Amino acid sequence: MKEVSQIKENWWQKRSFQPEESFCLRGVVISVKKMKGFAFISFQTSQDVFQAVTEISQLPKVGRWCEIQGKVAKAQVKNKIVSQKEIELIIEDYQYLQAEETEIPYELGKFETGITHEVQLNLRPYSLRHFKQRAIFKVQSEITYAFREFFRRQGLMEMRTPKIVAQGAEGGANIFELEYFGKRAFLTQSPQFYKEFGVGIFHGVFEIGPVFRAEKHNTSRHINEYTSVDVELGHINSFEEVMAFEFEALQFVFKHLKEECAYELSLFEQELVVPKSIPSITFAEAKEITKNLAEVEEGDLSPSEETFLCEYAKEYWQSEFLFITKYPEKKRPFYTMLNEENLEETKSFDLLYRGVEITTGGQRVHELEMIIERLKGKGLETNEFEFFTMAHSYGLPPHGGFGLGLERLTQKILGLGNIKEACMYPRDTSRLSP
Amino acid sequence: MKEVSQIKENWWQKRSFQPEESFCLRGVVISVKKMKGFAFISFQTSQDVFQAVTEISQLPKVGRWCEIQGKVAKAQVKNKIVSQKEIELIIEDYQYLQAEETEIPYELGKFETGITHEVQLNLRPYSLRHFKQRAIFKVQSEITYAFREFFRRQGLMEMRTPKIVAQGAEGGANIFELEYFGKRAFLTQSPQFYKEFGVGIFHGVFEIGPVFRAEKHNTSRHINEYTSVDVELGHINSFEEVMAFEFEALQFVFKHLKEECAYELSLFEQELVVPKSIPSITFAEAKEITKNLAEVEEGDLSPSEETFLCEYAKEYWQSEFLFITKYPEKKRPFYTMLNEENLEETKSFDLLYRGVEITTGGQRVHELEMIIERLKGKGLETNEFEFFTMAHSYGLPPHGGFGLGLERLTQKILGLGNIKEACMYPRDTSRLSP
Repeated sequence: MKEVSQIKENWWQKRSFQPEESFCLRGVVISVKKMKGFAFISFQTSQDVFQAVTEISQLPKVGRWCEIQGKVAKAQVKNKIVSQKEIELIIEDYQYLQAEETEIPYELGKFETGITHEVQLNLRPYSLRHFKQRAIFKVQSEITYAFREFFRRQGLMEMRTPKIVAQGAEGGANIFELEYFGKRAFLTQSPQFYKEFGVGIFHGVFEIGPVFRAEKHNTSRHINEYTSVDVELGHINSFEEVMAFEFEALQFVFKHLKEECAYELSLFEQELVVPKSIPSITFAEAKEITKNLAEVEEGDLSPSEETFLCEYAKEYWQSEFLFITKYPEKKRPFYTMLNEENLEETKSFDLLYRGVEITTGGQRVHELEMIIERLKGKGLETNEFEFFTMAHSYGLPPHGGFGLGLERLTQKILGLGNIKEACMYPRDTSRLSP
Repeated sequence: MKEVSQIKENWWQKRSFQPEESFCLRGVVISVKKMKGFAFISFQTSQDVFQAVTEISQLPKVGRWCEIQGKVAKAQVKNKIVSQKEIELIIEDYQYLQAEETEIPYELGKFETGITHEVQLNLRPYSLRHFKQRAIFKVQSEITYAFREFFRRQGLMEMRTPKIVAQGAEGGANIFELEYFGKRAFLTQSPQFYKEFGVGIFHGVFEIGPVFRAEKHNTSRHINEYTSVDVELGHINSFEEVMAFEFEALQFVFKHLKEECAYELSLFEQELVVPKSIPSITFAEAKEITKNLAEVEEGDLSPSEETFLCEYAKEYWQSEFLFITKYPEKKRPFYTMLNEENLEETKSFDLLYRGVEITTGGQRVHELEMIIERLKGKGLETNEFEFFTMAHSYGLPPHGGFGLGLERLTQKILGLGNIKEACMYPRDTSRLSP
C-alpha cells in the first residue's frame, strides 16, 4: 500500500515573474526568429504567451512541447501577442516533452494566421491553440464563472436538469428526436419546465447547460447546440424585477471581465462598457422607431429591426443594451403571463446587445386555471403537458426568469463575425465534427 | 423609455436573524400544529426551514405560499427539520402569494414522509420540495461549486464540449443514436477526446456536464444520463500525479461541505471525514485481498469485490477512499498508457469510495505512433478515429486525467440507497419523465 497525498508541481496556473528570478516552464514553442548570435522565441504556457530570447545554438523547433529553464529579465515588449509585457525569458536550457517529431498545419505565432474560418473549424483541435482562439474561450469561461458567482451570491441554487426529455417545452417544432429503450424521446430545447418546478423547490434557481435546437437555419447567428444561461426567480412582484436582476448580473459579469480579461479583450480591440442602467422600451414603442425600415416583421422584430434599435439606443441613450418589453401574445409561449391591462400583450421581454437578441424572458403564469386556458388558447393538448400542470396544481408563487445565449454574448462582447467562432466545437446543419 | 437598474428585494438569499428583529419572508407553509390559543408553523424559505408561532386565529393553510411578517424571538428549537435553531419567528400577519387554492399529495412537514421511493420519483416536482430532498441537491450543488473552485485555483480552464457527436469515445457500445439533419449522430458518452484536445489548448482543463450511456442495467448504481466531473492535466510526469490532484480536489470538496452543509449533512446523520491521504494498491494486490470472495470477476473487480476492498481499507488503513492502480490492458480503452515494465498493465486507476467506484482515470498515450498501434491492437479502425489521431499528430505533451460521477459521489456522501435519489430527474431504462 502506498499513500497518495499532495500534488508536487502545478504547470497550469498563471504565474507572474520578477526580473532576475529563475524560471522553469512547460509549454509549446509557437515561433522562432533567428537573429545574429541569438534568437527570439514565443513560448505559450497554459495561460500566457511569453517573449523569450536564447543564445543556445541548437534551437527548439516550432510546434514542439518543451520544458524551458533560465532567468527572467526586465523588458518592455511591444509584440501584441505577448501577455506579460514587462519581462522576457532568457532561455538557458530546454528539453522536449514529447519524443516524436510533430507536423503542424500552420504556425501559431502570428497575430493573423491567414487561415480561412472554415479550415479553422475543420482543424479545431489545432486551431484553438492560437492565442486569439484561446482568448475567446478564456473570456467565455470567465463569463460563466461570473454569472455563477453572481447567482450564488444572490442565493440562487444551481440545478441539473435532464437533457433527454419526453416532450419539448416549445410545443414540438425544431426538436431532435431519439430512440430511448424503445420509446420516442427528445433532446431538451430549454430547461423551462424544470426551472419553473425549481421555483417550487428552491424559490430561485439557475442552470448553465447545453440545449438543442433542430433549426434548419445556417446563419452567423445560429448553432444547433448551444449553452443557455437559465434563471428562474420566485416571489417576484413584476416582470421588471427579472429585468433588474439580469441587468445586475450583466453589470457583475462586465466588471469581472474588465478585471480578469484585459489581455484577451485587447487582442480583439474591444472596449467593454459596464452598464450603469439599461434603457427599456415597449414592443409598440420599438415598432414606432423602426416603422420606416424596409425589412419589418409583423408581430415580431426582424434581425434588421434589432440592429437598427441597437444603433438607436446607442445614439440616443448611450447604451449598447436595450430591453424590449410586452411582446404580443401571439409570439410568446403559453406559459407567458398576459398583461391584464391589454390581453394582447405579455409580461415579457427580450434583451438586445450590439445588434442581436441575447435574452428572452418574462413573467410566467403561476395559476393552474390560467395555464389550462392558455394551453387551450394555443391549441395545445393539456394531457401532453401533464407534468407541467401537475407541478402547478401543487402551487407555485409568482415567478419569472430568462434564458441567455452564452455563445451570442461571447460573440458580441468580442465583436466576432460569426457565432461559430464563439463555440469550441460548433454544430450546424452540416457540421457534426470534430 | 424607462431605465432598468438595481433589484430591490432579494427573497432567495440565506438570512440569519437576531432576536427582537422584525422580519418579512416569503415561502411556503409546510406544517401547522394547533395548540391552545396559538399554533406552531413550519415555514420553508429558499434555503431554510423555520419554526414559527402565531396567535392569529385565521391560520394559513399547509401547502400555501405566503409572505409572513412579525418579530424574531430567541429560542432553542429541538425539531430536527428546522435549520435555524436559535430563533423562532412570531408571525403577526401574513398574505397568500397565490390566489388559487392548492391540493397537495402529502404534507412536507414530517421528517419521514412515508412515501415510497417510486412514488416520490413520479411526483418529483413536488417531492423535491421536502427539506431532505432539497438537502441532497444543496449538497450536490456545493460539491460542483467546490470542484470548480478548486480547479480554477489550480489554473485549469473550463471547457464546453459538444453533446451531439459523430462517434463514441468507447468504440460504439452503449451509445444513444439520433438522426442529425440526415446523418447518424450520437450522444456523447464522455468528453474524453475533447478534453485531450483541451490539453493542447489550455494544458489543463475541466468540464462538469451531462454524459449519456445507453446501458441496459437498471440497478441502484446506474442511471442513463449522469453528470461527469472531467479533468485532464497536461505536463504530468506520472499517472500518480493525476491521483494526487484528485486527492487534493476531494479534500477541498469535503472541507467545503463540512463548512457549508452542516444542516444538510445532519439530516442524513452523516459524519464526513476529510481525507488526509488516500491509500493506493495495485490491481494485483487488490485481487490478492479479494481472492477468497465468492463473486470475483476475471480481469476486473466485481461490485462485491469493490465493497469488500472498501471495508478492508476502512479497517486496515482507516480510509473510506481507496485507489486501485494498474488495471489490466484488456479492460482499459485504447488511449490508456501501458506500463513499460509490464505491458499487460496500464498506467490507470479507479477510485473507490464507500463501496463503489466513483472515478476512472489514468495517463493517456500521447505519441501518435503508439495510438495507432493501440487502436490496431484493440481491433479498431484508425479512420473512425480520424480527429483523434489528427489532434495527436500536431503534438501533445504527456497528459492524464479522470472522470468522476457526480451522482455517485453525492449518493455515497449522504448514504443514499439508490443513485436515483441523487439525481433530480433520473433517467433509467423505463423512466423518461418527469
